[in-house]
Amino acid sequence: MTSASLDIVAIGDALVDVIATADDSFVEHRGLPKGGMQLLTTDQADELYAAMGPAREISGGSAANSMASAAALGLAVAFVGQVADDQLGEIFGHDMRSLGVRFETAPLASPPPTGRCLIVVTPDGQRTMNTCPGASHRLSPEALDEKLIASASVLMLEGYLWGPELPRRALMRAIEIARGSGPEIAFTLSESVCLPGRREALTQMIGSGGVDLLFMNEHEALQLTGERELGNALGLLAAKVGTLVITRGPKGALGLHKGTTIEVAAAPVEQVVDTTGAGDLFAAGFLAARCRGRDLKSSLEAGAICAAEIISHFGARPETDLRELTGL
Amino acid sequence: MTSASLDIVAIGDALVDVIATADDSFVEHRGLPKGGMQLLTTDQADELYAAMGPAREISGGSAANSMASAAALGLAVAFVGQVADDQLGEIFGHDMRSLGVRFETAPLASPPPTGRCLIVVTPDGQRTMNTCPGASHRLSPEALDEKLIASASVLMLEGYLWGPELPRRALMRAIEIARGSGPEIAFTLSESVCLPGRREALTQMIGSGGVDLLFMNEHEALQLTGERELGNALGLLAAKVGTLVITRGPKGALGLHKGTTIEVAAAPVEQVVDTTGAGDLFAAGFLAARCRGRDLKSSLEAGAICAAEIISHFGARPETDLRELTGL
Repeated sequence: MTSASLDIVAIGDALVDVIATADDSFVEHRGLPKGGMQLLTTDQADELYAAMGPAREISGGSAANSMASAAALGLAVAFVGQVADDQLGEIFGHDMRSLGVRFETAPLASPPPTGRCLIVVTPDGQRTMNTCPGASHRLSPEALDEKLIASASVLMLEGYLWGPELPRRALMRAIEIARGSGPEIAFTLSESVCLPGRREALTQMIGSGGVDLLFMNEHEALQLTGERELGNALGLLAAKVGTLVITRGPKGALGLHKGTTIEVAAAPVEQVVDTTGAGDLFAAGFLAARCRGRDLKSSLEAGAICAAEIISHFGARPETDLRELTGL
Repeated sequence: MTSASLDIVAIGDALVDVIATADDSFVEHRGLPKGGMQLLTTDQADELYAAMGPAREISGGSAANSMASAAALGLAVAFVGQVADDQLGEIFGHDMRSLGVRFETAPLASPPPTGRCLIVVTPDGQRTMNTCPGASHRLSPEALDEKLIASASVLMLEGYLWGPELPRRALMRAIEIARGSGPEIAFTLSESVCLPGRREALTQMIGSGGVDLLFMNEHEALQLTGERELGNALGLLAAKVGTLVITRGPKGALGLHKGTTIEVAAAPVEQVVDTTGAGDLFAAGFLAARCRGRDLKSSLEAGAICAAEIISHFGARPETDLRELTGL
């Protein structure tokens, strides 16, 4: 790994977030999964968009947010994700490249368009995500650059792509490449990987030692393992995965490594505006510190600082100098 | 005018703002007109965009910002402006309609694409605008709905459209319709109307009593009249225009009507983040108060409150309840 030319290469959804504020009644009335994520068809997305208030557009995507932020933290990173040849695809690509993220996945020439995530933010700062994945879920194994993956210290895989079949095959192929060539494999759980029919293949992949570092929140840990107690869930996962990172919102975060559990508090935030990207930024700060050789506790603390930055404003891309904030 | 079904119909650029922060050295090095606006060709815009940092996209356009805000203030308003049939055009249309602004200008099917304004915001909160007008400058007289214009109490015209020939013809046609049917005519000056070859026709139009209400900043007043002293410039303009409104940034604003001059202070702002839209929001607050029958002083004060809201965050669309702020 010492010869790696990249710190991290990540594979994930390539989305532009469309962010509007709304009262709780809007979320309730429409049966949106408050605090969670649902997938929408194009028609459903058009209908929800028409009902939403005026919005701002900010590039998003879970692993893409992490890479944009890791680049802002000074890491050498690349992102693999599928956009279409359209204006939102240009925006997504510009925002990655402008931070120095290598992003070379060729846009799809034919429909569907670049994916959007319609995000409704309620007065409590909670975000409810309604994703119209578009081109993003057309990522195929053929889009992967083996040399790029082999050249990284860490391969980061986004759980949202584990759901649909084509990008899941791309993730499986990336794991195969990484196992043969060196990068550690990090995986971020998401609600969508825990659905019936998807959980089994993931459990099997994790069980066979396919993941070195697993990011999740408490809910996702319980969903994936089918356990009711967090301790039991983490016990099961720790037996298979070298390092576990569990984000706990305002309660901070936990890290488990070789039988040791480290707990850190959440970093202070003046006002929670929009929680979109909290987990993504936690992962970015954690990985940046880890790539710089920091220990588990320092890495968790860097994650907490980055998460606090992102929830203090709209959107999941940082607006403050993360290097100054974290000291990395 | 008592039978008017609309408070205001505005004609202006239909743009999506692409907003990134940068140091002063970026603005200086590229020779961008700090605090001002320049028009870019598509190639120039692509080149500047590639050099800009990660951005957020928020619908913009000067008169469009005013109408979005006037609608948020409870007025019945319509907007006429040209977008293309593309993703940025959809975003622009959504953001207008979601606020209840009537926006029925049919998108252009063929290139150019929807216009963008590349906005660089420096640490002092000053915005430098680099506009790639695209479809916006293809607005033609044929796109106007005479009945719509005749049904409004106020017709608001954006100075930026006075520059290029086709939309200038559309503005001239709108003035003709309004003169015959009732709406007061408001005009917002902009740097681009004051260029040689454009100033003359505007001076003539104003001289012939074509404008009832003129919005401008001090610099624009001097440019248009060719005077060096603001007092002289305002004297010349007041002889031809019923009401003058002069915005003066942190120094507040002036209103001149029938020989009376009213001065108001700027409303307090905790931190100036991005001055984009300050003039547009001033106009919105002023017109909303005026349409509600408030006097000149109250109208200027409402304008100052709305301008203060918009400069406290990125983008030229309000993020706070303007009705609560202004009491309108």
